[in-house]
Amino acid sequence: MAQSKGTVVLAYSGGLDTSCILVWLKEQGYDVIAYLANIGQKEDFEAARKKALALGAKKVYIEDISREFVEEFIWPAVQANALYEDRYLLGTALARPCIARRQVEIAQREGAQHIAHGATGKGNDQVRFELTCYALCPKIKVVAPWRLPEFYQRFPGRRELMDYAKKHGIPVPVTPQTPWSMDENLMHISYEAGILENPKNQAPPGLYTKTRDPATSPDTPDVLEIEFERGVPVKVTNIGDGATRSSALELFVYLNDIAGKHGVGRIDIVENRFVGMKSRGIYETPAGTILYHAHLDIEAFTMDREVRKIKQGLALKFSELVYNGFWHSPECEFLRHCIGRSQEPVVGTVHLSVFKGQVYILGRESPRSLYNEELVSMNVQGDYEPADATGFININSLRLKEYHRLQSKVTVKQDE
Amino acid sequence: MAQSKGTVVLAYSGGLDTSCILVWLKEQGYDVIAYLANIGQKEDFEAARKKALALGAKKVYIEDISREFVEEFIWPAVQANALYEDRYLLGTALARPCIARRQVEIAQREGAQHIAHGATGKGNDQVRFELTCYALCPKIKVVAPWRLPEFYQRFPGRRELMDYAKKHGIPVPVTPQTPWSMDENLMHISYEAGILENPKNQAPPGLYTKTRDPATSPDTPDVLEIEFERGVPVKVTNIGDGATRSSALELFVYLNDIAGKHGVGRIDIVENRFVGMKSRGIYETPAGTILYHAHLDIEAFTMDREVRKIKQGLALKFSELVYNGFWHSPECEFLRHCIGRSQEPVVGTVHLSVFKGQVYILGRESPRSLYNEELVSMNVQGDYEPADATGFININSLRLKEYHRLQSKVTVKQDE
Amino acid sequence: MAQSKGTVVLAYSGGLDTSCILVWLKEQGYDVIAYLANIGQKEDFEAARKKALALGAKKVYIEDISREFVEEFIWPAVQANALYEDRYLLGTALARPCIARRQVEIAQREGAQHIAHGATGKGNDQVRFELTCYALCPKIKVVAPWRLPEFYQRFPGRRELMDYAKKHGIPVPVTPQTPWSMDENLMHISYEAGILENPKNQAPPGLYTKTRDPATSPDTPDVLEIEFERGVPVKVTNIGDGATRSSALELFVYLNDIAGKHGVGRIDIVENRFVGMKSRGIYETPAGTILYHAHLDIEAFTMDREVRKIKQGLALKFSELVYNGFWHSPECEFLRHCIGRSQEPVVGTVHLSVFKGQVYILGRESPRSLYNEELVSMNVQGDYEPADATGFININSLRLKEYHRLQSKVTVKQDE
Amino acid sequence: MAQSKGTVVLAYSGGLDTSCILVWLKEQGYDVIAYLANIGQKEDFEAARKKALALGAKKVYIEDISREFVEEFIWPAVQANALYEDRYLLGTALARPCIARRQVEIAQREGAQHIAHGATGKGNDQVRFELTCYALCPKIKVVAPWRLPEFYQRFPGRRELMDYAKKHGIPVPVTPQTPWSMDENLMHISYEAGILENPKNQAPPGLYTKTRDPATSPDTPDVLEIEFERGVPVKVTNIGDGATRSSALELFVYLNDIAGKHGVGRIDIVENRFVGMKSRGIYETPAGTILYHAHLDIEAFTMDREVRKIKQGLALKFSELVYNGFWHSPECEFLRHCIGRSQEPVVGTVHLSVFKGQVYILGRESPRSLYNEELVSMNVQGDYEPADATGFININSLRLKEYHRLQSKVTVKQDE
Repeated sequence: MAQSKGTVVLAYSGGLDTSCILVWLKEQGYDVIAYLANIGQKEDFEAARKKALALGAKKVYIEDISREFVEEFIWPAVQANALYEDRYLLGTALARPCIARRQVEIAQREGAQHIAHGATGKGNDQVRFELTCYALCPKIKVVAPWRLPEFYQRFPGRRELMDYAKKHGIPVPVTPQTPWSMDENLMHISYEAGILENPKNQAPPGLYTKTRDPATSPDTPDVLEIEFERGVPVKVTNIGDGATRSSALELFVYLNDIAGKHGVGRIDIVENRFVGMKSRGIYETPAGTILYHAHLDIEAFTMDREVRKIKQGLALKFSELVYNGFWHSPECEFLRHCIGRSQEPVVGTVHLSVFKGQVYILGRESPRSLYNEELVSMNVQGDYEPADATGFININSLRLKEYHRLQSKVTVKQDE
Repeated sequence: MAQSKGTVVLAYSGGLDTSCILVWLKEQGYDVIAYLANIGQKEDFEAARKKALALGAKKVYIEDISREFVEEFIWPAVQANALYEDRYLLGTALARPCIARRQVEIAQREGAQHIAHGATGKGNDQVRFELTCYALCPKIKVVAPWRLPEFYQRFPGRRELMDYAKKHGIPVPVTPQTPWSMDENLMHISYEAGILENPKNQAPPGLYTKTRDPATSPDTPDVLEIEFERGVPVKVTNIGDGATRSSALELFVYLNDIAGKHGVGRIDIVENRFVGMKSRGIYETPAGTILYHAHLDIEAFTMDREVRKIKQGLALKFSELVYNGFWHSPECEFLRHCIGRSQEPVVGTVHLSVFKGQVYILGRESPRSLYNEELVSMNVQGDYEPADATGFININSLRLKEYHRLQSKVTVKQDE
Repeated sequence: MAQSKGTVVLAYSGGLDTSCILVWLKEQGYDVIAYLANIGQKEDFEAARKKALALGAKKVYIEDISREFVEEFIWPAVQANALYEDRYLLGTALARPCIARRQVEIAQREGAQHIAHGATGKGNDQVRFELTCYALCPKIKVVAPWRLPEFYQRFPGRRELMDYAKKHGIPVPVTPQTPWSMDENLMHISYEAGILENPKNQAPPGLYTKTRDPATSPDTPDVLEIEFERGVPVKVTNIGDGATRSSALELFVYLNDIAGKHGVGRIDIVENRFVGMKSRGIYETPAGTILYHAHLDIEAFTMDREVRKIKQGLALKFSELVYNGFWHSPECEFLRHCIGRSQEPVVGTVHLSVFKGQVYILGRESPRSLYNEELVSMNVQGDYEPADATGFININSLRLKEYHRLQSKVTVKQDE
Repeated sequence: MAQSKGTVVLAYSGGLDTSCILVWLKEQGYDVIAYLANIGQKEDFEAARKKALALGAKKVYIEDISREFVEEFIWPAVQANALYEDRYLLGTALARPCIARRQVEIAQREGAQHIAHGATGKGNDQVRFELTCYALCPKIKVVAPWRLPEFYQRFPGRRELMDYAKKHGIPVPVTPQTPWSMDENLMHISYEAGILENPKNQAPPGLYTKTRDPATSPDTPDVLEIEFERGVPVKVTNIGDGATRSSALELFVYLNDIAGKHGVGRIDIVENRFVGMKSRGIYETPAGTILYHAHLDIEAFTMDREVRKIKQGLALKFSELVYNGFWHSPECEFLRHCIGRSQEPVVGTVHLSVFKGQVYILGRESPRSLYNEELVSMNVQGDYEPADATGFININSLRLKEYHRLQSKVTVKQDE
C-alpha cells in the first residue's frame, strides 16, 4: 500500500462500482470517508453504511438532503419552468449540485483535501459534480477514477470489477444486473446505456419503476387543486378524498404518488450532453411533470405578457446552465435572482386532473391575476374602444406596406 | 339604399353574423362578393353558397385551400416546433393568413377595393386578417363592421342580430347556440367566450368535437412510424394495420383521425392576446400534437446541439409573430427561410404510440443522425479520451474559482 | 367659447406651437394649466411663465426635474449601456417619461382630468408621453391636438399657426426659424425634419450647439478619472487641473462641459421609429458618450463573462423598451431591477482621455475586478495548468468532428 | 535524435519562438514543413523562408492568403457588424481560421499527420487554431509545444529560448524586444502581455504602429463614399482626390491607409477569453473601424426594423463563436448563411468623413431603402393618418393600465 495521500470524501452509492472505488482509493493510499446522500432514492441506507465500514471507510456520512433538494433546487426549477431541449425536466441535473454541495461541506468539516466520485468520463454528472466542488471550494482536489488510465484500463468491463470485488471481499450483487443503468432521486429516475444505447430500441416492458403503465392505471382520474405563492406550490388538495399536503417535501412526495399511480411523467429522448455527444435516455419525473403544467398555467394567468417573454428567455438559459452543471456559478445565481423576482405575482390555485399518463388543466383562479373577465368579454364592451384596434392595426401595417412598396419597385426594376 | 361604394369581398362563414354583415354591407351600398374558405372545417359548403346568393351576394367563391394550408402554413410550423407561450400550437393563427391571402387574390381578380370580415374588435383574428391584407395589397380598404360604431351600436347583442335577420329574410339557426363560440379548421378547433370566460369554469362535458374523451378512448394504442425529410413528415405507417399515407394533406387528415380517436391534443389555457388582454381558450389540435412530439424527437436526433439552440430562439420569435398576425412580413419571411435551412439534415423515422390522450415516443432512426452509438457507449471507449474531460472541466471551472476567490475577498473585507 | 370641458395640464415649451395649443385649448373650453419642465435645456423659464399667464393659463408650473432625470433615468441607462439600434444613446427617450411623470403628478394634485402635449402624430414622443400617463394614471384623458383633425386640418403649416398667433396676441418668434426642428435636454439635443429629411443631405455648418467642431476643438486632451459604484459614476477627477465633481447632477454637467469642449458625442443616423417608419436624426450626447465608454470598460473589467452576456441581452431589450416609450411598464421595471442587480460588483475607476471628438480609455482599476494578473500572465504560470487546455479543446472539438464525419458520409453518398 | 514520428506542418512566423519550435520538433523526430501565411502582416517573407530551410525545414510554404482573408472572413464579419463584448472587431479571431484552413490543406496535400503551432496555453489562439484543424480534418494530430510539460518546463522564460537558439544556430533578434507582444494581420494588430498586463498601465507612446497619433494626424479630413452591395463594400471613392478602389483587397488596403493616416481604430480593452480569464489588449483596426460604421449605417437605412432586430441577435452569437474559435462549425455556418440572407437588400452608398481618430457619417443613399421621405415628413401628411396613432397608443396602453389596476388593488389590500 502506498504512502498516505490524505483524506478523500467519496460519493458512495453502496453499489459495485463505488465499493470497488472505495477499496481502490484505500489501495492508492487515501483515507476514505464514505458519503451517501439520501436524496429520495430507494435504498437500504443502513446496509450501505455497514458495507462501507466493512470495506475500510474511516467514517460514513449518510445525509438526508431531500428537503433541501426540494426547497432549494426543485422549487427554483419549477419557478423557471425549467426544461432542457424542450423536454427534459432536469431531474438528475438538479440533484448533482445538491449532493456535491454537502460533500464539499463534509470535506471542509473533516479537513479532507480530496473528493471522489464514480461518475463516468463521458457523462454530464462528472461535470456537474466537479464544477460544484470547484465553485464552492477552489482548492479541493477531485479524484475521478473513471478518468484515470490506471483505473479505467484496469477495469475495462464489469467482469474485471467483479473479479476485483471477489478478491477484496466486496459483496457482489446477487440479482442479475439490468441491461441498462439507472439513477434515481426524489424527482426522477433515468434509464440509459446498455440495450438503450441503440436509439431505435423500444423501452422493454418492466423497465419503469416510478410510474404505473397508463394501460393499467386507474380508470378514474384524481382531481387536484394546487395552490401557489411566489411561483412555488404551497398546498395540494385532492378533491376526491380531501387529502391535503402543505410542507414542501410532503407535498412533493404526495404528487409523486398521485402522478406515479396514473403513469404521468415518462419520456424517451435523445439529448445533447455538455461534453458534445448525443445520448439517449428514458426518464420518469412524476411530480415534476404535474408541477410543470400547473406552474405554467398559473404563471400565464398572473404574469404580464412582456415580463413573461423576458423571463422565458432567462429560463431557457437557466435550464441550459443547470444541465451543464453550472448551478453554482455567478450567472446561475443571477438568473435565479431574476427569475425569483418575476415570481412575486405568481399566486393562485390551479385545478387539474391526473389521468392515464396525462395532466389536464381544468381551471384556475387568483387574487392577483391580470385576467380581466369584463375586458375580454365578447358580450360586454368593458373599458375598451373597438375603434382603437383600427389605429393599432393600421400603424402595425405601416412597415409591412412600406416593405411591399419597395419589393414591388425592386421586382418591377428586375423585370425591366 | 346608399350610393354604390364599390365592391367588397366578404369572408363569409354561412353563420348568423356574417350573413347579417352581408346584408348590412349591401345596405351600406357595397356590391358584395362572398368568399368562403374550405380549410378543413365541417361545413355544408353548397348550402352556404345558396344562402349567400339568396342574401344578395353578387358572386360566391368557395375555395378549397386545405392543401396549401397544410403544405405552406402547417409544415413550416412543424419545422419550427412552433408553440405560443409554451402551449398553443397556433391552429387558428396559422389559418388566418392562408384564408386572407386567397381573399386578397379574389379581390385583385375581381377589382374589388374592399375586404370585409366578421372578426370582433377585441381579438387577434382581426389583426391577422388585416395585416395579411395590407402586407399583400397595401391599397386595399378593410371594412371591419364589429369595429364600426354604426354597426356594433346597432347590434349590441345576439338578440338584435336575430331581429335583423328575421327582418331581412336571413335564415336563423334552428339549433340552440352553444354557450361558447367555436372556430374550426383542419388543424384545430377553439372554444372560447360565453361560460368559458370565467377562467375557473371547467370545460363542460360534450364540448369537445375533434377528439374522443380519453376516458372512453380505445384501450389499445395505435403505433405509428412517421418519416421525415427536411423536417417535414412525408410518410406515416400504422404498424398495427399497415396503413400508410404519403401526401401532405392525406397524411395530416389521417393523423387527425388517429389522434382524435385516442383523445390527443386537448388543452385549456389562458393566453396573452396581441391587443394586450389575457383570454381563456380551450383547444383541440390532434394531428398537430402528434407532429409536434415527433418532429421534436427527430430534430433532436439529427441536428447539431448549437444549431438547435439558435434555431430554438428563432422559432420562439416565429411563434410570436405568427400569433400576432405577422405571417406575411419581412421578418417572418426571414425566419421561415432560416428555420427552413436548419431543417436540411432533419431526416429519419420516429416510432411512437398514441394512447389515452398521450403521444409516447418509442424510438427513432435516421441515415443522417449525429448520434454516435460507439462514442456514447458506456462499454466501449470509442474515439474518446476520458482524460480530456478533466481538462475540459478544469478550464470550465476557472471562471468559477476566480469568482469564488473574489467573493471571499469581498466578504472578508465586509466582515472586517 | 364652448362649455367647460374641465382642466387640462399642458406640457408647455414656450414656443409657437404650444402657445397656440394653449390658446386653442381654452377656445375648446378647457381650463389650462401650463407645465414647463426644466430638464436641463437652455430656456428663459421666467419669460415662458409670463407668456403662459398672458395667454390665459390658469396656473403655471415650472418644475426643475434635472436631478431626478440624471439619477432616476440617465443612471439606469448608463448601467445598461443602453443603446438603441447600436447607436442612439436614447437622450430624448429617457427624458419623456421623466417629464410626463411630473405632469401626471400635477394633474393629480390639481384634480385635472386631462393632459395635453404638442408632440406630432408621426413621432415617438407622443407614444412615450401617453404610455407614461396611462401607466401611472389609467383614468387620465390625453388631448393630442396634432392628432385631432379639427386641429391639424386647421393648421396644415406654419403659416396658419403664425396667422392664428397674430390674431390671438401670441408673440411670434423674431428670429427666423432654423430649417430643422430641435429638442434639447440635459443629456442631448436632437436635430431632425426640414432639410434633414433628405437622408443624403449633410448636416449644415453651424447646426451643432452642444459640442464644438472637432476641427477647432483644443489641441490637448482632458484626462479624466471616473469612479463608479454599482455601475454608476460617483466621482470625476480632471487629472489636468484636479477639478472634481461628486454629486450626480454636477458630475453630469461637468462631463457635458468637457465633452462639449472636445466635440464628443455627435452622430448622424437613420433609425426605426416605433410607429413603423424610418427617420433621420442628428444628435449630440456629450456626457452620455463619455459615460457609455467608461461604464462599458469598468463593467467588462469587473463583471463575470457569462453574467455580462445575459445582462447584455437584457439591456438590448431595455433599450428597445425605453425607445418605444415603455419606461413605466412591468417589463421595464423588471429589467431595471435585474440590470441593477448585475451592477453590484461594478466598482472601480476608469482613466480616459477626451480629445477631438473621441473618448480614449487609458486604463482601469478596481477593488472588485475578476481580472487576475498572475493568472493571465504570459510569464508566470499562476494557478493554471496548460495541459488542461488540451482536454478543453479536444472536448470542444468532439461535436465538430462528429459533424465532419456525418458531412463526409452524406457527401460521399451524394457523389455515388 | 528520436525515431521518426512522421511529418508535421508548423505554423511558422520566422520569430524566435517558432524557430526554436522548428528545431525542437526535429529533435523530437518529426519531419518539419514550415508554413508561413502572408495575411497582410509586415514581414520579410523571403528571409523567413531561408531561415526555415537553414533550420532544417524539409519544405517551406509561404502562402498569400490576404485576398481570401478579406473576402471570406472579413466580409462576413462586416455584414454581421461583428463585435465581441461591444468593442472588439475580432481582427485576430478572424485570421486564425483562415490561416489554419490553409495549414490543413497543406498537411493533406503533403500527407502530414501532424500540425503544430506556437500559440500559448492560456490564450484563445490555440483554441481557434485547433478547432479549425479538427473541424476540417478530424484525424489530424496537433502538437502544441507550449502545452507540453517537456517543452514549457524546458523553456520557462525567454532566456532559455535564447540559450537554445544560440546553441542550435538559430539567429536571435538583434533589436531589443518590445516589453509587450504583438500579433499583426491585414485587419488589425494587437498588443498585449508584458507591461500591459497591469490593466491600469497606460499604453506607452510609440506603441501604435498601424495608425498615426490623432494629435499629429492631418488637420483636414478625408471624405469618402463607400458603396455596398449585399452588405459588402464594392467601391470606395475619395471625394477629395477622386481616387477609387473596387476590388476587395485593394479597397481594404486603401481604407487601412486612410484610417491609419487619421488615427482611426485604436482601442484599449479588457476582454473575457474563452478559457475563462480576463485579459487586457490594445488593438488597432483601421479599415475595420470605418467599415463597421459605414455598414451599420447602410444596414439601418435599408433593412426592415424587425429583420434587423433578429439579425442583431444572430450577429451577437456569431461574434462570440468567432471569438471562441468556432468559425468552422455547423452553428457558425448556419449563422453566416442566415446573416448573408439578411444582407440581400443592404445596397447603397454611405458618405463619411475620417478625421482625428473618428469616423463621421455624413449621409447615405440607396435604391432599395425603406426610408420614405414623404411618409416621415413633418410637413407633408403622406400616406399616414395621425388619428391611427391614437388607437395604436391606446391599445399599447391596455396592458399597462391593467397592470396599474392590479398593483393598486394589491397595494390597497396590503395597506388594510
